[in-house]
Amino acid sequence: MLEDKDAIRELVARYGPMADAGDAAGVAGLWSESGTYAVGGVAEAKGQAAIAGLIDGEMHQNLLAKGCAHLLGPVAIELDGDTAVARGHSVVFCRDETGYIVWRVAANRWELTRMPEGWRVSRRINAPLDGGEAARMLLGFADLA
Amino acid sequence: MLEDKDAIRELVARYGPMADAGDAAGVAGLWSESGTYAVGGVAEAKGQAAIAGLIDGEMHQNLLAKGCAHLLGPVAIELDGDTAVARGHSVVFCRDETGYIVWRVAANRWELTRMPEGWRVSRRINAPLDGGEAARMLLGFADLA
Amino acid sequence: MLEDKDAIRELVARYGPMADAGDAAGVAGLWSESGTYAVGGVAEAKGQAAIAGLIDGEMHQNLLAKGCAHLLGPVAIELDGDTAVARGHSVVFCRDETGYIVWRVAANRWELTRMPEGWRVSRRINAPLDGGEAARMLLGFADLA
Repeated sequence: MLEDKDAIRELVARYGPMADAGDAAGVAGLWSESGTYAVGGVAEAKGQAAIAGLIDGEMHQNLLAKGCAHLLGPVAIELDGDTAVARGHSVVFCRDETGYIVWRVAANRWELTRMPEGWRVSRRINAPLDGGEAARMLLGFADLA
Repeated sequence: MLEDKDAIRELVARYGPMADAGDAAGVAGLWSESGTYAVGGVAEAKGQAAIAGLIDGEMHQNLLAKGCAHLLGPVAIELDGDTAVARGHSVVFCRDETGYIVWRVAANRWELTRMPEGWRVSRRINAPLDGGEAARMLLGFADLA
Repeated sequence: MLEDKDAIRELVARYGPMADAGDAAGVAGLWSESGTYAVGGVAEAKGQAAIAGLIDGEMHQNLLAKGCAHLLGPVAIELDGDTAVARGHSVVFCRDETGYIVWRVAANRWELTRMPEGWRVSRRINAPLDGGEAARMLLGFADLA
């Protein structure tokens, strides 16, 4: 149990540094081959190539050029054998001409699967915390349908 | 030791997602029955019903309606048998008409107790980092009286 | 492995609370005697006395007087026997007359060594996420020369 939770925390902890280093292959490798990443209001990527494309894409490259940080909060983890769900916040800071602004504040639900090579993300859903239901459902502990 | 620290990190990691999901019963259940939560300059809640009332109350519901995130930093944990102290930051982001603002930045001292059902918060003290002594004392490693 | 990672996470988790409590000796004690802390664009401190001097120095004391928080993100940790590298973000919030601002957003590479008394920081390098290469290299998983 502790090893699984450590591996999942480590996986989630790599996302931000890899994203802000522009390491598209590294980010994609956190997901399983057919893993998906739904970024609410922005994009829905299916498979590692599409996820790498989010990092190599124009929006993310513009953020990197300005200076940005994808900061994650701690994740609450529910383990269930070879699958797990982790929930937590992400905050993107971005530099503009006056200093740093808080660019995006979002809720995240990470669905993880134990693969032969270790834990990988099978699905990540992200929704901005804008007062709507989508983000609140991602953070809730009653399971999604 | 590792299991205790994992359980405490998990407990703290649940606070933010549960608060931002509006899950008053979930938040209250992180505390022991007679647990307290002193939110510096805002409220002092004693017992689970009062803590649930903070989530269901007008201030928190207004934040939820606008869009908010209760982001916690990592906690430094001192274990002492069946009790523990954890220290760390909390930052509340809130949406306004121009984007996200940093609404509150605070120091937290979590006092925890091992109960038959697991670790629970017996006392949480929170104080805004406003240059005053209260917040700095909460973050210090010399024990409070 | 889990004990080492726990000890490193704990060490990193102490930095922010100790810094914001103004605990110069505590912060310095996270480093080894000859440890270094290079704060990009600000200072380069060598040895515990110099690191304590950053906390006691004018810039940090001004931040403390206004109200500040040194919030750290989760760290991704690579263990290699008696040494380790941890990578992650740090964000400094600071109070001004209008509320809290995001004062500094930086990348961090922590190099750690197991000493007889436990894990200590042998080198920490910090660089602002301003679109330049320095910060991105710190977050990358290809090793620095």
